Amino acid sequence: MEFTFLGTSAGTPTRSRNVTGLALAPSGPKPWYLVDCGEGTQHQLLRTRYSVMQLRAIFITHIHGDHTFGLPGLLTSASMLGRTQALDIIAPPQVQRMIQAVIENSDSSLSYPLNYLDSEAADFHWQDDHVAVTNVALSHRVPCRAYVFTERKLERQLLRDKLIKEGIPAGPDWGELQKGQDVLLDDGRLIRSDDYTQVPRLARRLIVAGDNDDPNLLAAASKDCHVLIHEATYTQDVADRVGPWPQHSSAEQVARFAEQAQLPNLVLTHFSCRYQSGHGGAPHINQLAAEAMQHFNGQLFLARDFETYCLNKDLTLTRQDDAAGQQPRPPES
Amino acid sequence: MEFTFLGTSAGTPTRSRNVTGLALAPSGPKPWYLVDCGEGTQHQLLRTRYSVMQLRAIFITHIHGDHTFGLPGLLTSASMLGRTQALDIIAPPQVQRMIQAVIENSDSSLSYPLNYLDSEAADFHWQDDHVAVTNVALSHRVPCRAYVFTERKLERQLLRDKLIKEGIPAGPDWGELQKGQDVLLDDGRLIRSDDYTQVPRLARRLIVAGDNDDPNLLAAASKDCHVLIHEATYTQDVADRVGPWPQHSSAEQVARFAEQAQLPNLVLTHFSCRYQSGHGGAPHINQLAAEAMQHFNGQLFLARDFETYCLNKDLTLTRQDDAAGQQPRPPES
Repeated sequence: MEFTFLGTSAGTPTRSRNVTGLALAPSGPKPWYLVDCGEGTQHQLLRTRYSVMQLRAIFITHIHGDHTFGLPGLLTSASMLGRTQALDIIAPPQVQRMIQAVIENSDSSLSYPLNYLDSEAADFHWQDDHVAVTNVALSHRVPCRAYVFTERKLERQLLRDKLIKEGIPAGPDWGELQKGQDVLLDDGRLIRSDDYTQVPRLARRLIVAGDNDDPNLLAAASKDCHVLIHEATYTQDVADRVGPWPQHSSAEQVARFAEQAQLPNLVLTHFSCRYQSGHGGAPHINQLAAEAMQHFNGQLFLARDFETYCLNKDLTLTRQDDAAGQQPRPPES
Repeated sequence: MEFTFLGTSAGTPTRSRNVTGLALAPSGPKPWYLVDCGEGTQHQLLRTRYSVMQLRAIFITHIHGDHTFGLPGLLTSASMLGRTQALDIIAPPQVQRMIQAVIENSDSSLSYPLNYLDSEAADFHWQDDHVAVTNVALSHRVPCRAYVFTERKLERQLLRDKLIKEGIPAGPDWGELQKGQDVLLDDGRLIRSDDYTQVPRLARRLIVAGDNDDPNLLAAASKDCHVLIHEATYTQDVADRVGPWPQHSSAEQVARFAEQAQLPNLVLTHFSCRYQSGHGGAPHINQLAAEAMQHFNGQLFLARDFETYCLNKDLTLTRQDDAAGQQPRPPES
């Protein structure tokens, strides 16, 4: 499972960080899913290997503009490229109203259907062949969700000794069993795949959280979860100065939660644009990392635009080179 | 008068060209005006010297998304920066509905008032201290306008010989006359500025046209006009293949018009993304220039993102270095 950050800035874009968007792919660039779609997401995609033509679904955490204003442009560009495949949009109901109003008032039309699914429905659940997705209600100024992606396509291993011992002959039937299909033998026996195969590893699971001032809401979902991607808009001192109104998390707050939940990997994102990487008077972005490291002993990353991470089958998380090296990384500003 | 291209691609962004936006400034970066606002315009501005804080008015040529989808992000970012000054939005009525729907459905609010002015009103006219703006109806799939910007602040020269001859003493009164103020002398004479000063040059005038398949509609407005900025989406052969439906102009069509109208300067923009600059199989962007040059003998430019042009007081048009050299120019793709 791979994910690529398309934007890591809170609220407004900077010269080196776009507003929020994350591309997630179960294996390779098709199909893939988009979580949040700030303005300029379609522009960022032009510098990755992801195409709107292979996009399967868009998951929106909440309605704020830095997570949604890229939707009209991305959707209409896909139409101009000739997309015909339906696209699922999992989002709060206002997002549908926003998209429809923009389309109506810009003489636009789409060459493919949109399937809107209410992310705030009590029984929310989405899946395709590759992933199963649930969500968790967070605490923000508007309803907001974290999406929990769990891998579905796990390879089965045949229990060869058992098959041989019970006289089930090697051949195409074994192949069917390995694919998870039950098999009716010539002698009339029904052989269940689950009885003659095993899945030798855990399903990979990651959480992509939206804006949130209470990471503890993710406690239950974090069990058996291998990566948490969570906002850390401020350091704690700035969060204290700003006060509770924006309802964002500090790096310390998320790190403390991740430590308590024993999460092996934490990726922080959605940084206030006050944090920079230069030598000027602005607070340095590394302050966020330094603060989080004081409270979290697992593997910690601060996301940057175009960084791609791989959650491997052995459940390790590795950061890859920037997407295809297609552009020089701009200096932080 | 300066103008900087923020986007020069038709329909969808490419890796080197954003969708349409143009910053226009009478002198220096404040105040300035924005003509069209495709998605990502606020991102482009971060690489220029123009700030949304000094933006005086936005002129929208027509409602299509590649000219309007950047509005919600630009407006809300200005609010997050604390803008309080009112902003004029000159646009078709649908733009107001679009902006209001997006703001309502994204929990947004603005810290400053928007003044909407209907660009399609029969008597449309706008002005501030620096420019007077009128518009011209074009021919496109939706109502579309060209905006005609005429300089207002012209320096007066005193008619010194006449002043001396008529016994009007040098002093503060001369200064008032030069500013355009009439003066009541101590001896009771009312001296009119217009009678004792002259404006030694023409007011600079330029046209920024929206999408349009009939450049001849600009014939009257092109008189005494020094620059025409017009779309040239296709070469003529491609326009013929595509057919009339998109209602765009070819380079040949615009060049023929500019020649007939005796326009001294023509800047082409809004190029179909099929035209590229590489050595692959795609048609080269220079085909558009080559075609236009066959039919136009004035000064011709093909716009690129971040290029700044200066319409000088002597009515020459010069292309400056890329905006402040703030970024390496990306390769054309």
